[in-house]
Amino acid sequence: MTETEIRAAVKAAVERVKATNPLAPSITNTVTQDFVANAQLAVGGAAAMLYLPDECEDMAEIAPTFYVNMGTAMPFYAETLPRLVKALSEHQKPWVLDPVGIGLSKVRMNCLHEFKDFKPTIIRGNASEIIALAKLWDLIDDSHGGQVRGVESTEKVSAAKEAAVALAKFTGGAVAVSGEEDFVTDGKDEMFCAGGSALFTKITGSGCALGGVMAVYAAVASPFIAALTATTIFNLAGSKAEALSGLPASFKVAFLDSLYELTAEDIANNFRIVGAFEEIFNNALQAPELKNILG
Amino acid sequence: MTETEIRAAVKAAVERVKATNPLAPSITNTVTQDFVANAQLAVGGAAAMLYLPDECEDMAEIAPTFYVNMGTAMPFYAETLPRLVKALSEHQKPWVLDPVGIGLSKVRMNCLHEFKDFKPTIIRGNASEIIALAKLWDLIDDSHGGQVRGVESTEKVSAAKEAAVALAKFTGGAVAVSGEEDFVTDGKDEMFCAGGSALFTKITGSGCALGGVMAVYAAVASPFIAALTATTIFNLAGSKAEALSGLPASFKVAFLDSLYELTAEDIANNFRIVGAFEEIFNNALQAPELKNILG
Amino acid sequence: MTETEIRAAVKAAVERVKATNPLAPSITNTVTQDFVANAQLAVGGAAAMLYLPDECEDMAEIAPTFYVNMGTAMPFYAETLPRLVKALSEHQKPWVLDPVGIGLSKVRMNCLHEFKDFKPTIIRGNASEIIALAKLWDLIDDSHGGQVRGVESTEKVSAAKEAAVALAKFTGGAVAVSGEEDFVTDGKDEMFCAGGSALFTKITGSGCALGGVMAVYAAVASPFIAALTATTIFNLAGSKAEALSGLPASFKVAFLDSLYELTAEDIANNFRIVGAFEEIFNNALQAPELKNILG
Repeated sequence: MTETEIRAAVKAAVERVKATNPLAPSITNTVTQDFVANAQLAVGGAAAMLYLPDECEDMAEIAPTFYVNMGTAMPFYAETLPRLVKALSEHQKPWVLDPVGIGLSKVRMNCLHEFKDFKPTIIRGNASEIIALAKLWDLIDDSHGGQVRGVESTEKVSAAKEAAVALAKFTGGAVAVSGEEDFVTDGKDEMFCAGGSALFTKITGSGCALGGVMAVYAAVASPFIAALTATTIFNLAGSKAEALSGLPASFKVAFLDSLYELTAEDIANNFRIVGAFEEIFNNALQAPELKNILG
Repeated sequence: MTETEIRAAVKAAVERVKATNPLAPSITNTVTQDFVANAQLAVGGAAAMLYLPDECEDMAEIAPTFYVNMGTAMPFYAETLPRLVKALSEHQKPWVLDPVGIGLSKVRMNCLHEFKDFKPTIIRGNASEIIALAKLWDLIDDSHGGQVRGVESTEKVSAAKEAAVALAKFTGGAVAVSGEEDFVTDGKDEMFCAGGSALFTKITGSGCALGGVMAVYAAVASPFIAALTATTIFNLAGSKAEALSGLPASFKVAFLDSLYELTAEDIANNFRIVGAFEEIFNNALQAPELKNILG
Repeated sequence: MTETEIRAAVKAAVERVKATNPLAPSITNTVTQDFVANAQLAVGGAAAMLYLPDECEDMAEIAPTFYVNMGTAMPFYAETLPRLVKALSEHQKPWVLDPVGIGLSKVRMNCLHEFKDFKPTIIRGNASEIIALAKLWDLIDDSHGGQVRGVESTEKVSAAKEAAVALAKFTGGAVAVSGEEDFVTDGKDEMFCAGGSALFTKITGSGCALGGVMAVYAAVASPFIAALTATTIFNLAGSKAEALSGLPASFKVAFLDSLYELTAEDIANNFRIVGAFEEIFNNALQAPELKNILG
């Protein structure tokens, strides 16, 4: 894809979601459900959170996409997650995997191991989680880092680039690594996205909300464009919110407001690409478009 | 009831809650618990969320009212909900049923089927949910709509009027249908409530919060007046919040602030009645009282 | 400890948390997890919420501290909580117990009874909860109050002083009683903390957030200093937030922003001591330091 094609595809994804309000159900951690749902609604999607195996299966049939986040796993996840993922596969629905807490428990590890056969459409995590998942699935060797400290990354995004590309080549979908700058790849195209805000680390759930919004865009776009669109809108809304408040709780309010307010044009003009293209897009934070938005 | 009697009853309910802070415990979905509890506190009630069968039974005895929301059902709901509802019946406590996700799973459907024998004091839902529940309980025939798409309604409020009246006649309590305008009935009196904000559809949980606040008012008022008072305060606070912000997250903050700030007089002057009375109250959005409040 | 020593220790605790970002995992109620995590992040800590027995055990080994809140207990708590507490004891990690809902169910009561053998490092609750726990553990007789109405206290903080001192002497840790003014003791030193805001009672979860922040400070300070530091920063941020907004939802945003913004110096100058010292510190609300901050 050329730069022009990518910008057009991102713009189309944003517009389609605003026009069709796709439902993106989630099984996701209890801590950040409110944030995930409100972020999904703000970009134009619809939200529903579920736990029971049979209703997850029903939803996998009805809904055009799904978000699977491993945080705050409960005992019944051992039954719900495998059945959900099988149903998503049968109905050929795109889904986003957020391997929060990888390494922590048998329930999570068994589920994550089993997910290898069902190839998530998009995998989103911080650098440590992406490296740990690529190791668990034997896609990279042990020479990489990937220690996970609770839910935080101990690695830089760039350290997870090889793991992300290996995962994307294996699944045939996309992988997004979140951090100070973000990396998105489908195994061929590779993109670093700038922008965002350091305040994302001072509020809980921005990673979960990002995964939930990726699932919304996955209903209307390719895995790569869905991951890229969500990443880009988060970076832009984060920059805009930080310009409005340097304090975390009012930043979060401004961030959700900005997610809702940003137009397709705003979003499509906020990224740079490196790698496969050997071409540099405008850096978002210097782009005249962003200056106008932040006004 | 005459218009004057209704306005006086609403005013008395608001004042009694502010004076006595009734505890309205909930079993409710994990997504919106924070919003439900904060809305209950804002109007002057007290909140407690529970999951275990025995403590739900204890609370049914201790507390003057209860809120039962079927969202994010977990496996143990199959034991907790029937025991809770039996206890509420034994202790003759009013309770509000919010049949979120009706149609999705066996656990929900079994519980909802069983609830027919225990006649919830107030039933609150969107149009699709109300129609689906009336069908499940064989109170209306299959010629009605009532498709539920996840947690959203595919029907207009007016389409659920017959179902709502049938449910209210059956339970002897009240039914509230939420949507662009809201319908409240006890099977005899029927009222459409105007006001509110389209931004309610851009934040998660306003329906749950409304149900939770109905449970608060059910501690001090008749089912019909409790449902009407909660609906009216939500519409007024929604209009007021939208006048302060057109963006969803700051709208939500302004909405909760407004719930707290509105006086009994403000609330009692914000509805119109149609139907049984063949009489039209002032439309809230044109009422001079509201103009003064929105200043 | 002298006043000078206490102020220096509080200042050091605040600075150490901002410098080292200690991870304070929680098993805590689903209602207020977002608030707890955001409060922990705002003061400089890191958050992770968990439910499964084996990952709680893993985290007890990895993390330097833990927060255990009994709210919204679910059936699997009967297995998770005892195993977690044993693991914390084996690894000699400090932990904060918040006995929310004491008296309500067998699961809670069995767990709380068992906790006696594992001596929580800090116990935080409202007056009724502290009295009820001291009675459950046979540390005070039945002549005291301690009726719990759902999650609210029916007792004044001063009524729980004897129970708090008895609990602290028994555990060898600290006890904090939250209310209009707060009482903190390690069984020897006793301190009443002023400040805060009546609006804390109009939002859900400020007590939970306080317990979660105590767990953060327990990673870097003695139980008494950790309990005191968290109490003091909450009181100061609450006063500051109330000066910015008299309405609950915007108060909550301002409160979290203030938690993030307050400096170690601000915090160390905001308390008074009574009791063991027979000496009165400056009342926070009259202190010139606070006037400057609120200025």
